[in-house]
Amino acid sequence: MQNENEVHNTTFPMGDKNTAYAKFFTGQSYLNGLVAPAKDVNVGVGNVTFEPGCRNNWHIHHDGYQILLVTAGQGIYQEWNKPARLLKPGDVVVTHDGVKHWHGAIQDSWFAHVAITAGNPEWLSPVSNDEYVKANAEVKE
Amino acid sequence: MQNENEVHNTTFPMGDKNTAYAKFFTGQSYLNGLVAPAKDVNVGVGNVTFEPGCRNNWHIHHDGYQILLVTAGQGIYQEWNKPARLLKPGDVVVTHDGVKHWHGAIQDSWFAHVAITAGNPEWLSPVSNDEYVKANAEVKE
Repeated sequence: MQNENEVHNTTFPMGDKNTAYAKFFTGQSYLNGLVAPAKDVNVGVGNVTFEPGCRNNWHIHHDGYQILLVTAGQGIYQEWNKPARLLKPGDVVVTHDGVKHWHGAIQDSWFAHVAITAGNPEWLSPVSNDEYVKANAEVKE
Repeated sequence: MQNENEVHNTTFPMGDKNTAYAKFFTGQSYLNGLVAPAKDVNVGVGNVTFEPGCRNNWHIHHDGYQILLVTAGQGIYQEWNKPARLLKPGDVVVTHDGVKHWHGAIQDSWFAHVAITAGNPEWLSPVSNDEYVKANAEVKE
């Protein structure tokens, strides 16, 4: 499995196993909260690390958005009815209000991103094995 | 001068000389815009790099805030009437609405941070040489 050392050595600590959101993920993720939302700060910031094969469920950010700053490894970002996109360190993703999407590691690499999140998430169904295998094939073409 | 290689090799490119905001800085900075604010995205995200000795003016974020994610080198963050704070990679700073502050490199090191910014900046007077030398002395104690 690739990039395990890389995700352990980004600028921001990897944090502990992401138990709080485990029910919305397939596989093991890790979360290190960097900034909590506050009365006058409408975003939360966290460092999220995915083991190979790990991804979150399809989800939507309502009345908000999400920005991903990719820091290590290789991953996938996919919006509903769109092609999967390969993510590498330095890539930036903006998910706009109301857009159904998922993100996670590819099958054979660890993956880490800083997530800047505003609004209320709505968690939907897991990314099925068929959807995940298809997305991995797409980003390897 | 320390950490020149480090600021050139963070995950996000350093970008070009920061001409757009040069009048609000003392010394040379570099800016790489990562995310522009949009109708439904109330923050901008940019990678800011400071040459040794470079700092921005005292400023305030009105109706917003700023989050700094330090990625390389060593710098200073200071709020009005508060002690200067040394910044190193992995440090996170939240500047709340209306707080007068400045940030920049220390005298003998390059410095880089990702800045997440909401609201309207009000740019005030430069950090004087006396203020800057005093802040450097404080963070070296």
